[in-house]
Amino acid sequence: MDAVEAANSGHPGMPMGMADVATVLFSDYLKYDPADPKWADRDRFVLSAGHGSMLIYALLHLTGYARPTIEDISRFRKLHSPCAGHPENFELPGVECTTGPLGQGLAMAVGMAAAERHLNAVFDDSLVDHRTWVVAGDGCLMEGINHEAIGIAGHLKLGRLIVLWDDNNITIDGKVSLSSSEDIPARYAATGWHVVSCDGHDPASIAKAFDAAIADERPSLVRCTTIIGKGAPNKQGTSATHGAALGAAEVAAARETLGWTSEPFVVPDDIREAWLETGRRAAAPHAGWKQRLAGHADRAEFQRRMAGDLPAGFSLDSYIEGLLADPKKIATRVASQMALDAINAALPETIGGSADLTPSNNTLTKGLDDFTADNRTGRYIRYGIREFGMAAAMNGMALHGGVLPYGGTFLVFSDYARPAIRLSALQNARVVYVMTHDSIGLGEDGPTHQPVEHVMSLRMIPNLELWRPCDTVETAEAWAQSVARKDGPSLLALSRQNLPQLSSGGAARGGYRLQAAEAPRKVVLIATGSEVEIAVAVRAELEAKGIGADVVSMPCWSRFDAQPAEYRDDVLPPLKPEELLRVSIEAGTTFGWERYTMVDGMRFGIDRYGASAPINDVYDYFGLTADKISAQILAKLGA
Amino acid sequence: MDAVEAANSGHPGMPMGMADVATVLFSDYLKYDPADPKWADRDRFVLSAGHGSMLIYALLHLTGYARPTIEDISRFRKLHSPCAGHPENFELPGVECTTGPLGQGLAMAVGMAAAERHLNAVFDDSLVDHRTWVVAGDGCLMEGINHEAIGIAGHLKLGRLIVLWDDNNITIDGKVSLSSSEDIPARYAATGWHVVSCDGHDPASIAKAFDAAIADERPSLVRCTTIIGKGAPNKQGTSATHGAALGAAEVAAARETLGWTSEPFVVPDDIREAWLETGRRAAAPHAGWKQRLAGHADRAEFQRRMAGDLPAGFSLDSYIEGLLADPKKIATRVASQMALDAINAALPETIGGSADLTPSNNTLTKGLDDFTADNRTGRYIRYGIREFGMAAAMNGMALHGGVLPYGGTFLVFSDYARPAIRLSALQNARVVYVMTHDSIGLGEDGPTHQPVEHVMSLRMIPNLELWRPCDTVETAEAWAQSVARKDGPSLLALSRQNLPQLSSGGAARGGYRLQAAEAPRKVVLIATGSEVEIAVAVRAELEAKGIGADVVSMPCWSRFDAQPAEYRDDVLPPLKPEELLRVSIEAGTTFGWERYTMVDGMRFGIDRYGASAPINDVYDYFGLTADKISAQILAKLGA
Repeated sequence: MDAVEAANSGHPGMPMGMADVATVLFSDYLKYDPADPKWADRDRFVLSAGHGSMLIYALLHLTGYARPTIEDISRFRKLHSPCAGHPENFELPGVECTTGPLGQGLAMAVGMAAAERHLNAVFDDSLVDHRTWVVAGDGCLMEGINHEAIGIAGHLKLGRLIVLWDDNNITIDGKVSLSSSEDIPARYAATGWHVVSCDGHDPASIAKAFDAAIADERPSLVRCTTIIGKGAPNKQGTSATHGAALGAAEVAAARETLGWTSEPFVVPDDIREAWLETGRRAAAPHAGWKQRLAGHADRAEFQRRMAGDLPAGFSLDSYIEGLLADPKKIATRVASQMALDAINAALPETIGGSADLTPSNNTLTKGLDDFTADNRTGRYIRYGIREFGMAAAMNGMALHGGVLPYGGTFLVFSDYARPAIRLSALQNARVVYVMTHDSIGLGEDGPTHQPVEHVMSLRMIPNLELWRPCDTVETAEAWAQSVARKDGPSLLALSRQNLPQLSSGGAARGGYRLQAAEAPRKVVLIATGSEVEIAVAVRAELEAKGIGADVVSMPCWSRFDAQPAEYRDDVLPPLKPEELLRVSIEAGTTFGWERYTMVDGMRFGIDRYGASAPINDVYDYFGLTADKISAQILAKLGA
Repeated sequence: MDAVEAANSGHPGMPMGMADVATVLFSDYLKYDPADPKWADRDRFVLSAGHGSMLIYALLHLTGYARPTIEDISRFRKLHSPCAGHPENFELPGVECTTGPLGQGLAMAVGMAAAERHLNAVFDDSLVDHRTWVVAGDGCLMEGINHEAIGIAGHLKLGRLIVLWDDNNITIDGKVSLSSSEDIPARYAATGWHVVSCDGHDPASIAKAFDAAIADERPSLVRCTTIIGKGAPNKQGTSATHGAALGAAEVAAARETLGWTSEPFVVPDDIREAWLETGRRAAAPHAGWKQRLAGHADRAEFQRRMAGDLPAGFSLDSYIEGLLADPKKIATRVASQMALDAINAALPETIGGSADLTPSNNTLTKGLDDFTADNRTGRYIRYGIREFGMAAAMNGMALHGGVLPYGGTFLVFSDYARPAIRLSALQNARVVYVMTHDSIGLGEDGPTHQPVEHVMSLRMIPNLELWRPCDTVETAEAWAQSVARKDGPSLLALSRQNLPQLSSGGAARGGYRLQAAEAPRKVVLIATGSEVEIAVAVRAELEAKGIGADVVSMPCWSRFDAQPAEYRDDVLPPLKPEELLRVSIEAGTTFGWERYTMVDGMRFGIDRYGASAPINDVYDYFGLTADKISAQILAKLGA
C-alpha cells in the first residue's frame, strides 16, 4: 500500500486481498531458502497475477532474501529498482518467472511441475521432490491459455501443481458477473483437477484447503474467497483498489482499520524477526538436501543439468561431416529430425513435443517415449492442439532448469504462441521452437496456413534468434547454436519441401557467402531457407550472361548483425547500387529487407496473402522462380 | 474422396465422417437460398474444422449454388479454383468465413450469433430470425480460444448458436486420449451451455438432438459420435484418413463398401435432383421474407446496414473543425473516445467493447448500454479478459453484416489477438481495433506491458491498416478512415500519455509534411504518434542552429505507400543522404524504418525491451528526448 502510494502507480488490491493466503503459504507450506534463491529443490512460487507484484516483493523482503531491500521497495516502479511494475525473473532472484501477461504464469507453472516430475523420475526423491504453487486471479482463469494449460496439467496428472485462485469477484471493468457466468470449479473438475475451497482470510481454513490439495493426486485448484484491497475500509471489495494508488486519505484510514502504526517502509523489529524466522524455517530442509546431494551417485550429472551446461565434448561436428560426405536432398524439417536424432541421443535433458503435428513437424526421434502420467521418464510430450499452452509450458520447463525443451507447430501458428515466444525472449529462457511449413512452399493448404509476415515479424522480437536454414548442413548448425545458447530462445523456420544440400557450413555467423561471383561481380543475391536454392539458380543464369553474382545465405539476421563490421562489409560490400546491386529473395514479406538490399536494391518476396495450389504453381504465380527473377535483374541492369 | 484423390492432398476424414450429420442439417434444418447466398436472414453455417473443406464444397454444389461447379471441385486445391485447401469467404459465396486456423470458426460464430440477436432486437423477428450452426472438431475444442468463445456465448446466452462437435476421437497424432482427458460436455455445461448427444451416423438420432438444441435457450453443443473417414473400410477410424488422400486402392474399396458405382465427379441424375430439391426446400422461407422486407417501415435502414454503407452525409469534418478551433492536449486514447462519441451518435451500427480494459481503452461512450442476455439492443460488449475471443467475435459480427464492431485492449496484447487480427485482414472484415498504451510511454507497468516490436510487426500484416496518430486531429481522421473502409480492418495504436494538438489534418494520405523547414533544408524528421511531439522539438533545436528540418507525420504507412510517386517524392524528396538526412523517431523497434530513412539515415527507437519507470525517466533512459536526438543529428551533420 505504501509502495504503490510512493510510486503513485501500481496494484494494491491483490496484494492486500491475498496477504492472508500468502502468509500461510510462506509460513507453513512453501519450501525455499532466502539465502539461496536458486536451491534446486525449492518449491516454485509463481505469481501469475503479476500485477500484484508488491505481494512477492514484500514476501521476499520479509523472509530474508538479500533483495529486495526496503530501499528497493521504496523505489517500486522506479528506474533501476528490481521491484518493477510486474515481477521479472531477470531482475530479482526469487521471482521464478516474469508475469503480467495474464494466464501465462499459471501455464508456465504447468511446465515447471512437469519438469519436476520428470527430474524426480530421472534422479530420485532425495534430489527432486518439490511443488509448484501459483497465485492466479480471474484474468488468468478467463484467458484462453488457461484452458490449454489446465488441459495439459489435468491430462498429465501433475499433482504437485497447486493453484491458489484469488476469487475476489472483481475485474477492471467491475464485477466478474459483467462478463462471465462460468462455474469455474466445475470446469476445472471437468478437466481432471481436484478443487477445494477456503475462506481466504481465515488461516485455519486456508491450511485445511492446502492440506487437501497436497493429499490429492490430481493438480489442485484452491478457491480462496477474498476481498480485494482488504483493509482499505472505503474501497475494499471494489475495482477501485485494483490498479491505482489508494490515496493518502484511504491509506490513513487503512492504517487505522488495520491497527498499523508504523511509518511507510518501517517494519517493527518483532514482526521483522518473526518473518525472518519464517524464512529460516522454510529453509530447514536445505541442509539435509545438501548432504544427500553430496553423497549422490548422480551428483555431477544433476549439477550439470541444473546449471544448463551441455555434456563435455558435445558437438554436432561429426554429424555435419557425415552430411558433407553424403549430401541429401530433403526437407529441412526432416533435416531437423536427423539433427535431433543426434542431439537427443547425446543430451538426456531434451524434452520434445508438438502441438499435435508430430508427423509434420518431425519432432519425434527414435527411442523417445511419451512423458505421461504413468511414464515420468518419457521425453516427448503430446501437447495436443495447444500451441500457446505448449510454448508457455516450455518456458516453465526451461526456467525450472534441468531440462531443455523444444516443441513444434506450423510456422503460421507461431501467431497463436506469440505471447509466450515473446516471454521466452524477455525471460532469457532456452526454448527451441521447431516451426515447419515455413512459407507458401507448403502449397495446397493455402493462405490460412502459409506464413507471409511471420518470419520477419519474429525477427524483430528482441533476444529471439530466428533461423531459416537452407539445407541439412545449415539446419544442423542452427540446432547446434540453439542448444548451446543459454540465455534465450531460438526458433527454427523449416521447409515442408525438399531442398538440395548447398552449404559447407558457415551459418553460425548468421550470414555468409555461399557462392562467390566468377564473372566481374555486379550483383549480390541474399536469400534464406528454401530460396537459397533459387538464388543459386539465378546466379547461374546471371553468370551465363557474364554478370558476376555472389550468393549470400542469411539464415539468422541477428547473428549476422552482431558480426564485426569488417566481416559484414566483406559479405555485403558497402558499394553504391550502380556498382553492386543487392537483391533479396525470400518467400515472405519484403518489409524490412531494405536493411540489406538498400532502398535502391531489389526485393523478391510476397507482400500479400498466399494461394492454395501445388508448390510449383504457387512459386510461379508469385514470381519466385529463377527465370522470372533473373529477367527482372537483367532488366534493372540494362543487360 | 475423389477430389482429395485428384489433388493428392487434402483431408477426406472429416467430410466422410460428418457427411451424415451435414446431410440432416442441410436437408431439414438449415435455412439458406442457393440462388441468393447473401440473403440477409439465412442461417449462418461455419465449418470451424476448415480442413474438412470438401464437405462444404460438396454441399454448396449439390444444393444448387452457382459455384462451386463440378469443374471447380475437380480442381480442388489447384491454382484459381474457388475450392481452396481451406474454405475462403472471399473466394466462394456460401462460405461465411475463412477457417482452418483452429478454434476461430467457432469463435467467429459467437460474433455472428450476437449480431443476429442484436439486429433482431433493433429490427424484429420479421427481418432477423436465424441461427448460427457450426461444425467443430477436437482441435477447435482444445484450442484456448474455445474457452474464451464459449465463455462469451454462455454468458450472453446466445441460444441461436448450435455447435456440432465431430466427436471422432482422432487427432493428427493419434487418439484424442494421447493428449486430453477432458470431459468436454461437463466443461461446456460449466460454461453455461446446453449439451446433447447423438449418433452421428443415425439421421433420427441427429434430428432429435438438433430439435433439443433448438428448443433450449442456451447455446448448444451437439456431441456427434462419428467415425472419421467413414466408408473407407481399411482406414476409417484412424488418423490415416485425416490429412492425406486415401489412395487408389482404398478409394476403390470405399466405393465398393458404399455401393457407389459412379465415376469420380459424376453425380447420378436422381441424386442430383434430390439434392437440388433439398436446396429449394431450404430456400422456401425466402419469398415470404422478401415480402415482409418490402413492406417493412425500416426497410431502407436495414438494407443500408446490411450493405455496410454509412448513413448518407456522415462525416467527422465538423467535429474536426471544432478541434481545430479549440486545441486540446490529451492522450490519443481520450481523443479516440471523443471521436467515438461523435461516431456512436451518428452510426447506430457500431458495437463497441473491451477485453476488460474499458476505463483504460476509453472505448465506452455516453449513452451506450451493455449488450447482455437481457438487453439485446445494447451496443457495448463486456468481453472479459478474452482478447483473442473478442477479436474473433468481432470478425464474426463484421462478416454477419449489419453491425460495425470495434474493441479495445492494450497494444502489447495484440499478440494475444494476433491470429484473429490476421483473419480480419485475410477475410476483408471491417473491424476496428482500439489498442491503447502503445509504447514505453505507458511507463511503470514495465516491459511486459510495453510494446516494442508490435507496431512494426502489425504493419506487415497484409490488408491491415495500422494508424498511430499524433494528436486529437489525426485520431479523428484515423477513425473516419477506419469506419469508412469497407474491405478490411484497421488498428489504432493510441497513447496513454497526453499529447499536444499539432496537426491541421492530412492523415488520410498516410504521411504528410506537418512542418516545413524554415532554414535551408538539411533534414527530414519522420515520426509517428507520441514521437511527433519530439520531432517538432528536435526541429526547433535544429532550426535554432540554422539547420532547416521538415517534420513528416507518418500515421499510416500503407496509406502513404499507396500515394502517387509525385506525392511521396514531395514529402520525402529522393535526395542523397549528404543532401538531405532522413531521420525516424518512433518509440518502438527501428527494424523496417530503413524503408523511409534509407540505410544511411538515422533511426531513433528501441531495439530491446522497455523498463518499468515513470514516463519521462523511460524516454530519457532510451534516449528519446529532443536534446539527445538533436545532439546526435548535429554530430552526424558535423554541425
